[in-house]
Amino acid sequence: MKFDILTLFPDMFWGPFAHSIIKRALEKGLLEINTINIRDFTTDKHRIVDDYPYGGGAGMVMKPEPIFRAVDFIAERDGRVPENIILLSPQGRKFSQNIARELALKEHLVFICGHYEGIDERVREGLVTDQISIGDFILTGGELAAMVIVDAVARLIPGVLGEEMSAADETFSQGLLEYPQYTRPREYRGLKVPDILLSGDHGKIARWRRQQALKRTLAWRPDLLEAVTLKEEDYKLMEEEITVDPRQIKD
Amino acid sequence: MKFDILTLFPDMFWGPFAHSIIKRALEKGLLEINTINIRDFTTDKHRIVDDYPYGGGAGMVMKPEPIFRAVDFIAERDGRVPENIILLSPQGRKFSQNIARELALKEHLVFICGHYEGIDERVREGLVTDQISIGDFILTGGELAAMVIVDAVARLIPGVLGEEMSAADETFSQGLLEYPQYTRPREYRGLKVPDILLSGDHGKIARWRRQQALKRTLAWRPDLLEAVTLKEEDYKLMEEEITVDPRQIKD
Repeated sequence: MKFDILTLFPDMFWGPFAHSIIKRALEKGLLEINTINIRDFTTDKHRIVDDYPYGGGAGMVMKPEPIFRAVDFIAERDGRVPENIILLSPQGRKFSQNIARELALKEHLVFICGHYEGIDERVREGLVTDQISIGDFILTGGELAAMVIVDAVARLIPGVLGEEMSAADETFSQGLLEYPQYTRPREYRGLKVPDILLSGDHGKIARWRRQQALKRTLAWRPDLLEAVTLKEEDYKLMEEEITVDPRQIKD
Repeated sequence: MKFDILTLFPDMFWGPFAHSIIKRALEKGLLEINTINIRDFTTDKHRIVDDYPYGGGAGMVMKPEPIFRAVDFIAERDGRVPENIILLSPQGRKFSQNIARELALKEHLVFICGHYEGIDERVREGLVTDQISIGDFILTGGELAAMVIVDAVARLIPGVLGEEMSAADETFSQGLLEYPQYTRPREYRGLKVPDILLSGDHGKIARWRRQQALKRTLAWRPDLLEAVTLKEEDYKLMEEEITVDPRQIKD
């Protein structure tokens, strides 16, 4: 899968992409990530990428020409116009795991990272095929949003994660928050691992974990439950949880 | 304002933080950002930070001890226990501009970036004071989420943005999506700047922009309108929009 990222700050990306899973996927050739400097597509001596807004107002607006030309460059390089040109924008549809799955099916994504107070509207009108926002908050530019999307999408590409980790993801795919995880030592600073996890009874452990996942989702993110098909057993687990502290359950 | 970021990948941060507004804020001394390597607080020869989960299951879990010790280090350095210890977690409350404003009032934030399949629950039980999620998607680790939050918070700290840009932000603070912005040239690849923006009539321009902001919000993010107090004039603008293409309004 190929990502082209159009940005004024290409150097921002190589710290985040030089680590962990993305790095291994790049090395394995499962991913190709190109950062393309929008400033390289200016034609004036001062390499100007922004200008004052028509109609007045604070801030600067990113000029359309260098961005259109950067996309032309991609089209020439590939011998075809890119099909998926995504503008990172607070106005876009809200990024989610479902959108990550949708994007992971594409062969090629182009991201345009805005900066300053905005981007000339004609980039939206004439170039962009999709707008995505990672949330209702204001960032300095689209770069961090692009990194977030590349990370979330990349780990869904077959082969990028080891099999072991892919399997573990299914917890989240079931639409619930994750159950609590514990590792050694059994006791640390007075805090103990719940007995049930040390019991070796896999049936009970699975039941406890499901109950904990339900409990947390109910307490912290009840909205997620709307999209989950609960079984009769799940309702029992939730009722039980109201009266029994799971730390007290003995095997 | 001081940020301490506990992470297994401190090098990830310096690309993103070496640019643009964060960089200038660091240089001006308005921000202090420390990345603290959790691995430096292991005590074994192999510097192990993760281990198998009790009760079985896929993936590894981050061990509690190095994280507790890293927070001890901060407490010793500062002569006080940090008050705000934020775990980046899909289970946390959803990050928003309101939470960014809330955090921007603090003097010191500590972030803990999780990795692998999870983090020992005792970090949540015994250390963490707040859990934040940047959205319903799965990332490789908490690092990108921490960068997003630092960026969104840092730009709200007085002096970090120039006055000109702070003012421009108010568009978003009013709870609507931004109106379209245009800069030179007047026409590019057949796409024109709307005549009204070239009219010089500031009253009409302000009215058009408000109308466009309302239109977009209604079309793309109607949920945002619930939190906005609209004036009578706004309702008129929205009704008018239904029948009149704003590009045809002549001055």
